[in-house]
Amino acid sequence: MAPEKQLMAMLAELSRVSDEDGKLTRTFLSPAMFRANALVGGWMREAGLTVHVDHVGNLVGRQAGATARGKTLLLGSHLDTVRDAGRFDGPLGVLLPLVALAELKRRGVTLPFAVEVLGFSEEEGVRFASAYLGSEGYTGRLKATTLALRDAAGESVGEVLAKFGGRKFLLPKATHKRGDLLGYVEVHIEQGPVLEAKKLAVGVVSAIAGQSRFKLTWKGQAGHAGTTPMGLRRDALAGAAEFALAAEKLARGTAGLVATVGSLTVSPGAANVIPGLVEHTLDVRHARDAVRREALLALGRAANGIAKRRGLKVAWQRTQNNGAVDCSRELTARLERSVKAVQGRSISLVSGAGHDGVVMSTLTPVAMLFVRCRGGLSHHPDEYASAGDLEIALRVVVDFLEGMAQQHAS
Amino acid sequence: MAPEKQLMAMLAELSRVSDEDGKLTRTFLSPAMFRANALVGGWMREAGLTVHVDHVGNLVGRQAGATARGKTLLLGSHLDTVRDAGRFDGPLGVLLPLVALAELKRRGVTLPFAVEVLGFSEEEGVRFASAYLGSEGYTGRLKATTLALRDAAGESVGEVLAKFGGRKFLLPKATHKRGDLLGYVEVHIEQGPVLEAKKLAVGVVSAIAGQSRFKLTWKGQAGHAGTTPMGLRRDALAGAAEFALAAEKLARGTAGLVATVGSLTVSPGAANVIPGLVEHTLDVRHARDAVRREALLALGRAANGIAKRRGLKVAWQRTQNNGAVDCSRELTARLERSVKAVQGRSISLVSGAGHDGVVMSTLTPVAMLFVRCRGGLSHHPDEYASAGDLEIALRVVVDFLEGMAQQHAS
Repeated sequence: MAPEKQLMAMLAELSRVSDEDGKLTRTFLSPAMFRANALVGGWMREAGLTVHVDHVGNLVGRQAGATARGKTLLLGSHLDTVRDAGRFDGPLGVLLPLVALAELKRRGVTLPFAVEVLGFSEEEGVRFASAYLGSEGYTGRLKATTLALRDAAGESVGEVLAKFGGRKFLLPKATHKRGDLLGYVEVHIEQGPVLEAKKLAVGVVSAIAGQSRFKLTWKGQAGHAGTTPMGLRRDALAGAAEFALAAEKLARGTAGLVATVGSLTVSPGAANVIPGLVEHTLDVRHARDAVRREALLALGRAANGIAKRRGLKVAWQRTQNNGAVDCSRELTARLERSVKAVQGRSISLVSGAGHDGVVMSTLTPVAMLFVRCRGGLSHHPDEYASAGDLEIALRVVVDFLEGMAQQHAS
Repeated sequence: MAPEKQLMAMLAELSRVSDEDGKLTRTFLSPAMFRANALVGGWMREAGLTVHVDHVGNLVGRQAGATARGKTLLLGSHLDTVRDAGRFDGPLGVLLPLVALAELKRRGVTLPFAVEVLGFSEEEGVRFASAYLGSEGYTGRLKATTLALRDAAGESVGEVLAKFGGRKFLLPKATHKRGDLLGYVEVHIEQGPVLEAKKLAVGVVSAIAGQSRFKLTWKGQAGHAGTTPMGLRRDALAGAAEFALAAEKLARGTAGLVATVGSLTVSPGAANVIPGLVEHTLDVRHARDAVRREALLALGRAANGIAKRRGLKVAWQRTQNNGAVDCSRELTARLERSVKAVQGRSISLVSGAGHDGVVMSTLTPVAMLFVRCRGGLSHHPDEYASAGDLEIALRVVVDFLEGMAQQHAS
C-alpha cells in the first residue's frame, strides 16, 4: 500500500476509537484515550520504536539514533479531540511521522539522532477547560493551579493523574534537557482556508499568533422601541455593532491581523425594547505582539469614541492573553527547503490557532508544517485532508529528516 | 384631599392588588383582576356610577346623561398589567376619569350625555401572548382564532371565558352601536421621553403609529477565528451589525420614524468562532403607513446590498403588521384646546406604542391624552408620573368634559 494510503487507513481506524457512539470524541485520560494509546502504540512497535506512556498519559515512541551520543528530534501532536471531532486534527501529526520513519527505513536511511514520536494526551482543553495538559506535563510546566481544576464530574486533574499513576501525582520536571534536543516538529491540518485559496498542499508556519481575548460590556438605556425617538436613544446594540465593524475594518487594514466578535448577547432582548445592555467577546490575534498591542490600543480608542458619542458606557474584561511564538528560523528554513523540493514553492503561514508547539517552544526550537484541509474546516466530522496532500506532506517530512540526517552526520 | 392626591392614593392602593407577592402583576381574568374590578368598581359606585363586569371581564361604570336621548362618551384604559409592572400604565386612564367626574359633580356640572368609564380586562398580551382581548370583546372584534389561543397552563381563551361566564362563550357583538357613541378618550402615560424633553406635563396624541415587525436571518459561514483571514470571512454578525446601523441611520434621517433591533442571537456563539448565523428582530413604526412602507423597502434594499457585498444570505419573516390609526380630528382639536387652556401650549405626539384606542377606533372616534412619565420609563416598578402632572391632566379632562357638555347642550 502507498504510504499515504496507509496513513489514511490508520487515521480512519483511529477515528473509530471514541468515548461516544456515532461520533469521535476522546478526552484527557478517558477510556478511548487508553484504547487510542494501545492502538497507536502497537503501530509504533511495528515500526520498531520503543513505546511507553508517560506520567500524564502522553504516548512516547522512541527510535534510538545511530550514534549513542546523538541528540533527540521530537515529532508529534495530540491524540485527544474535541467533541464530535474530525480525524485529522492531532492524530495526523502523530501518525504521519510514523509512516515517514517507516519510509526512511524502507529506503535504508538511518538517522544519526534519536527520534521521539509524541502523542500528547491533551491539547483541546475539553475535559478540564484547560488546554495543553499533555505538552505541559512533557515539558515540566504543569502548575499546581492546573492540578486543582475539576471536570464536570468533580474530579480534579491531580486526582485523575493520581488514579492513573497509582500514587500521588507529583509535578514532574521536563522529560529532556534543552541541550539534548534538536527541536520539535509538528504536522497539523491548517484549520483555515489559506492553503486552499493558494492551491497549495502544504505550507510552513512562521509563527503561532499571539492572542488576546476580551469580554466587552456596553451599557446604554433600555426603552420602548415605539415611544423613544431616535434622537433620545442610548442603544447598547448600536454601539456594539459600530464597534464590531470598527474591529473588522482595523483587521482588514492591518496585514495578518484577525479580529472577531464571536459571541454577543442583548438585554433585555425583546423585539419592542431598545437594547440597554450588550455583552460580546473580542478575539484579536497577530504573529507579532507589538502589532496586536497596537491594534488593541486603537480598538480601545474606537470603543471610547463610540461610547462617548452615543452616551454609552463600555467596559473591557481581559479573559486571555498569550504572546506570539516564533518558530525556529533554522528548522523552519530546512522545512521550507523540503517544501520547495517537493511542492515547487513554499509559503509562510501564521498559525492563528494554538498548538502543542506553543508549549514545546519553551523547551526546544519548534517548526510546524500545515496541510491543506477542505474548506478550512476543523473541529467537525467533515474535517478532511486529501490523500494527495498527505502524500506531499509525507514526502516533505521524509526529505526534512533526510536533510537533518545529512546535517548531523557531517 | 386635592383631586390629584386622591388619584395618586387610588393608584397606590390598586397597585397592591397583584397576582405576585412583592411585585405588581395582573393578567387576564386572574384572581387579582377580580379583586381589582371589585376595588375599582367600588370607587365607581361611590362616584354614583352603575357598575357591571361584561362578558370578557371588562369593568364598565356608567353614568346616565341628563337627557335620556343623549349619546354616550367612553373614557377608559386597561386594568391588567405586564409582569412586575408600574402602577400608571393602564389604571391612570380608568381612575383619572372617575376623579374628573367627581370634580364635575362637585362643581355642579351635569353632562347632557352618558359617560362610560371602561377598565379593560386585557391589553398587555401577557397571559395569551395576544393583546387587546378586553377592547376586542367590547367592540365585538374577538375572533375564533383568538379564542383558541392557550396560556402556559394549556387553557384556551375560550375555555377561560366559558368558566368565567358559567356557560359556553359565544363571540359577542359590539356593546354599542356606532351612532350611539360620541367617541373614546384615553389618558395614558407617554411611555416615552418626549414630554420630559419638552418640559410639558401633557400632550395630545395625533395618531397611533403603524408597526411592522420582522425576524431577519443572516447566514454566513462559521469558521475559526484564528485561522480564517479577514478577506476570506463571511461573518453573519458583521452583516447584521451593518444592517442594524443602516436601519438606525434611516430612522434618524426620517422624521417620526423609529427602527429598532431589539433582540439578536449569534450561532455558534463562541469567542473563537466566526458567526455563521445571526437572527434578529426588526421593529419599524411610523404614524403614516406610506412612510413606514417606504422605509421597509429601503431597508430591504440595504439588506440585499450588504448580503451581496459580504457573501451572506438574508431572509425576512414578518411577524407583525399593524396599520397606523389616526385620532379623531374633532375630539383631538377639542382636547388640544383644553390642553392649551390649562398648560399654555399643546404639542402633538405620535403614540409609538399600541393602546386600547387602536381597537376602539374601529367602533368610534378616539382621542388620547399623554401624561409625562419620569425618564420615559414604563413596564417597570419605577414607572412614575408626578402629582403635579396628574393635576394638569385632570384639569384638562375636566375642561374637555365641560367643553363637550357645552357643545352637546347647545
